[in-house]
Amino acid sequence: MGSAQEHMVIFQPSGRRGRVKSGKTLLDASRELGVGVESICGDKRTCGKCRVVIQEGVFEKFGVESKMSHLSALSDEEKKKLKEDEISSKYRLACSSKIRGDILVYVPEESRSGGQIVRKAAGEVKVEIAPAIEKYYMELEKATLEDSTGDLERLLASLRKNHKLKGLKIDFMALRSLPDVLRDGDWKVTVSVWKKREIIRIEPGVNDTMVGLAIDVGTTTVVGYLTDLRTGKVLAVDSMMNPQVRYGEDVMARITYAMSEKKGLERMHRAIIEGINKIVENTVKEAGLSPEDVLELVLVGNTAMHHIFLNINPEPVGLSPFPPSLHHSVDVKARDLGISASPGANVHVLPIEAGFVGADNMGVVLAVEPYKSEEILLVIDIGTNGEIVLGNRDRLLSTSCATGPAFEGAQIKYGMRAAPGAIERIRIDPKTYEVKFKVIGKTDWHTKYMEEDVNARGICGSGIIEAIAEMFKAGIIRKNGTFNPDLKTKRLRKSGDKGLEFVIAWKSETSIGKDITVTLPDIRAMQLAKGALYTGCKILMKRMGISEVDRVILAGAFGSYIDRESSMVIGMFPDCDLKKVVAIGNAAGDGARIALLNREIRDEADEVARKIKYVELTVDPEFQTEFMRAMYFPHMKDQFPHVDHILDKIPKSS
Amino acid sequence: MGSAQEHMVIFQPSGRRGRVKSGKTLLDASRELGVGVESICGDKRTCGKCRVVIQEGVFEKFGVESKMSHLSALSDEEKKKLKEDEISSKYRLACSSKIRGDILVYVPEESRSGGQIVRKAAGEVKVEIAPAIEKYYMELEKATLEDSTGDLERLLASLRKNHKLKGLKIDFMALRSLPDVLRDGDWKVTVSVWKKREIIRIEPGVNDTMVGLAIDVGTTTVVGYLTDLRTGKVLAVDSMMNPQVRYGEDVMARITYAMSEKKGLERMHRAIIEGINKIVENTVKEAGLSPEDVLELVLVGNTAMHHIFLNINPEPVGLSPFPPSLHHSVDVKARDLGISASPGANVHVLPIEAGFVGADNMGVVLAVEPYKSEEILLVIDIGTNGEIVLGNRDRLLSTSCATGPAFEGAQIKYGMRAAPGAIERIRIDPKTYEVKFKVIGKTDWHTKYMEEDVNARGICGSGIIEAIAEMFKAGIIRKNGTFNPDLKTKRLRKSGDKGLEFVIAWKSETSIGKDITVTLPDIRAMQLAKGALYTGCKILMKRMGISEVDRVILAGAFGSYIDRESSMVIGMFPDCDLKKVVAIGNAAGDGARIALLNREIRDEADEVARKIKYVELTVDPEFQTEFMRAMYFPHMKDQFPHVDHILDKIPKSS
Repeated sequence: MGSAQEHMVIFQPSGRRGRVKSGKTLLDASRELGVGVESICGDKRTCGKCRVVIQEGVFEKFGVESKMSHLSALSDEEKKKLKEDEISSKYRLACSSKIRGDILVYVPEESRSGGQIVRKAAGEVKVEIAPAIEKYYMELEKATLEDSTGDLERLLASLRKNHKLKGLKIDFMALRSLPDVLRDGDWKVTVSVWKKREIIRIEPGVNDTMVGLAIDVGTTTVVGYLTDLRTGKVLAVDSMMNPQVRYGEDVMARITYAMSEKKGLERMHRAIIEGINKIVENTVKEAGLSPEDVLELVLVGNTAMHHIFLNINPEPVGLSPFPPSLHHSVDVKARDLGISASPGANVHVLPIEAGFVGADNMGVVLAVEPYKSEEILLVIDIGTNGEIVLGNRDRLLSTSCATGPAFEGAQIKYGMRAAPGAIERIRIDPKTYEVKFKVIGKTDWHTKYMEEDVNARGICGSGIIEAIAEMFKAGIIRKNGTFNPDLKTKRLRKSGDKGLEFVIAWKSETSIGKDITVTLPDIRAMQLAKGALYTGCKILMKRMGISEVDRVILAGAFGSYIDRESSMVIGMFPDCDLKKVVAIGNAAGDGARIALLNREIRDEADEVARKIKYVELTVDPEFQTEFMRAMYFPHMKDQFPHVDHILDKIPKSS
Repeated sequence: MGSAQEHMVIFQPSGRRGRVKSGKTLLDASRELGVGVESICGDKRTCGKCRVVIQEGVFEKFGVESKMSHLSALSDEEKKKLKEDEISSKYRLACSSKIRGDILVYVPEESRSGGQIVRKAAGEVKVEIAPAIEKYYMELEKATLEDSTGDLERLLASLRKNHKLKGLKIDFMALRSLPDVLRDGDWKVTVSVWKKREIIRIEPGVNDTMVGLAIDVGTTTVVGYLTDLRTGKVLAVDSMMNPQVRYGEDVMARITYAMSEKKGLERMHRAIIEGINKIVENTVKEAGLSPEDVLELVLVGNTAMHHIFLNINPEPVGLSPFPPSLHHSVDVKARDLGISASPGANVHVLPIEAGFVGADNMGVVLAVEPYKSEEILLVIDIGTNGEIVLGNRDRLLSTSCATGPAFEGAQIKYGMRAAPGAIERIRIDPKTYEVKFKVIGKTDWHTKYMEEDVNARGICGSGIIEAIAEMFKAGIIRKNGTFNPDLKTKRLRKSGDKGLEFVIAWKSETSIGKDITVTLPDIRAMQLAKGALYTGCKILMKRMGISEVDRVILAGAFGSYIDRESSMVIGMFPDCDLKKVVAIGNAAGDGARIALLNREIRDEADEVARKIKYVELTVDPEFQTEFMRAMYFPHMKDQFPHVDHILDKIPKSS
């Protein structure tokens, strides 16, 4: 798991992350990872602009002191430039702090320079506020010798009389507290009832604080939104690297760890629980509350994260036929998981649709609501797997396609993450075959630099999509993905024994001392990735008996970065009016907040999860044929009328 | 609590217990406490008959080794007399084992001598066997790519199809185990379902073991009955001193401890939980099972024991108006209490009727079933409090009377516990006023001794009742409890400034070097105790609108020891055909087993507990008058036709 010479560094609020060589400064790291941190002095350590805050430790075993030891000691420059209260608030100068371990850094607004890609913040979600928790203030009659009815029966009678609540149960921890709370509050108490079913907390006197926590457990990042259950307002957000990262970077690595290490599952489970407890701690602190005030939690995550969070063996999810342990949502007492919250609090985990279509996708579905739509929606969440939901209120299908990591820049010769130095946008002149490109970390196309002077180092996922689309539009590559050998340009050339390659950036324009090219294997990798995605969409549409969709929804961060037109020109997904292709960012967390704020939506989610029919692509008799056809640009047979004006201009030679 | 020079010693199966001076032998202790242990050699340590087994340690902090250290080391005699396997099974010779700490001793049947009063063993209970737990063996279809439904949904579908079980929930711990168990069992599993509602355990393959534990948490003794849930058979019994004894001998002392010590409640709670865990461990071991096999537990105990067991503050139960935290039965996961059992197992705690009429009395009610009776039953459970239930299937009343400890021999000049040396039976010749008596530990009336040569040391509770009854019958005391001053016998004499006293045993017949007498204050104490009990019965009967009952049921150990005729002659309870006065022994534990074996009886119990109307005696306007009248023998006004033949013979002088 990672070389000893590198450490994981995460910058907030952008969420940008990556492994950085030990000994580099935080400022170096910010540049490598494409995070804009102000710095005017040109690394002379004199301007003091690059103030950053060292956030909550990334590993639970490190206390405050040892967390700080993941950085070099406070330098003289820092002691001069930083005020005492800044130092105690864990401010550091990014230029002077050398990385010695994994670290989570927050870039305060005043220190941010333009150009970083900010993670979608917790936006407004549209939901009727009807949370699972309701609070009732009660004034009870004291017990007397004439009426020495038990405390609970007294409370229940009053809830029945004044609030028409019948058949209520009481959480055992709430019951334990009952005699003391009733007497501390002089028989005036505030009762928290979960789903009109169970008393989960009793507080003396009046207390109308009502908060819950929505948690999005990503494979890499965990985000918690402390939310006011009365207003829906997000009171505090906290995020951290998923502490399981040390056991494996991706889902399969973690499942393998659980399978191969005797205590692997337990370890990863503990890690995420402790991580969530940190998030609880940080968010309630920010809101001026205590963990006991958190009355409910709602959690989303992919199927593997879901299982590990619940301490359920994820092994079957990693092996064909990939059945999850359950589909239905889970309600479990926070205390059964060791989560610090109100002692009677429940954790609600959204349902799983199918093996690879997890509770995170269910969050997306809740945010998009295809099950309420009249229009037929095609919801695509692109990651290492592409998860697709198709349909409307009448019928919903889902599938998961193994797109592989090509969209993330992996398995591509000059592919890299979306970090500074990555070419993210490309234009090719169809007459001269000259290339213009834009690099992450620079404000404009490839000549005008930002303050950081970083040349091109590679191509990121969205850049590759554009490169392919532009090469196709210019007639450099043909429908079947092969290069047009008749092309007269020095940019097209032999690439060893790997066939031809096309030069995107000349050596002089890069910082890596060589040309950055797109090779034939790169094109093949992209054909496989986009072909898998398109096939998924196509087979779902066939099953649905439709030939076009009304709207394409791109969920997830990647969906927000890619150029919609280029995506359609290469045929990543079926034809659609480009105005009807929308990116909605990271919607899983939005879904968690929606379920936190409305208890009935949870039942809806369970119903929808059951209703969404999962289609296993690999066993579809047409899969091979469709997949083969979908590897063409944009497709061997299918039409793309909405980009015909572009396709028609492609030189005839191709 | 207790002098450093004395240790608590409990003998099983009789349950006899008491504090014994450090350094005494177990054989000495058995004699002091009235436990018959065989010994032929006359303490010469040669016969080897006094074999006893050192049972589970009484305090959880002592492991096996240190438990043994509560006795002197194995003597040479013991090494000679005991076989190797006996030594490894913790056999000792009672004559050679000196007490150095608290100890729990089991007297095997072959070592028992006659005369000890054996605690009611777990007898047959009459109950239809329909436990809360049901087991289903299932063979599931394996998941395939065509049908990769989740594990839980697969299991639920099969339970629905094959066993018509709908809407089942699953315990979180059972859910956690699901994927592994399904695959370990090659998709053949045994499912334990609680109350047709919740899956609580899943085991690979076939496993038809189905056991539960009924627990009677007494203030002094805790008994657990490991019970086969298919047959009702008791597989193993284990008992121990309630480990809370170190925090207070009686209920009020424990409530006070909880009130005055910050961690008092928590400490006592931990102690009883750890005690119960020992009982689980011992009983499952005896039955060749493991704690995970215990699928359910049912518990009874008085209201204070109930609260402390659940870790609920018992303070309100000890202060007027004595409301319990709740009346309703409690179902709580064993894991929430830290009890070692199957991870999904529930603990069911029987309901509480009212402050002092607790779940133990509810156990008695389940064993007696007055709520099904056509006859009107008067159920009296006599302890430090007298708990009374009156009625039949139409109507039930209950109350609790503060009888005080006089029935236990306390607050009586020569009163003592029911231990060897205690006078337990008395006859007075109404002509000569001569006294015959029988001492516990002797086989016959006061001349013919057993092998132990113990003279009278005092009078126990049942002895005092007989003494009062015999004195009353002989005209020595009058209806109002005063002595007849005209009596011509040297046994009636002045007692300092305390009025008169009557000599039961002359100095020469005792081992304490003085006469054993019954004094005027002794009679007063008994008048208060029996008056309180009678008043309770009387007021319930008045409320019920009846003047006689069909049957009197005496529950509890004390009820089994007392002479029914004497009790009625002094007016402990209202008149009834003596043939209809029955003692049923310790019925609370029977009630726990009944509820363990039949889930519907639990609902019945909750219904009955609600139906039984609690009558608070002290606020009854007639209480004072009735109490005053009831202090007469047998009563100031009420008639006792069933003992008229005795009452009529009482000399007219009185």
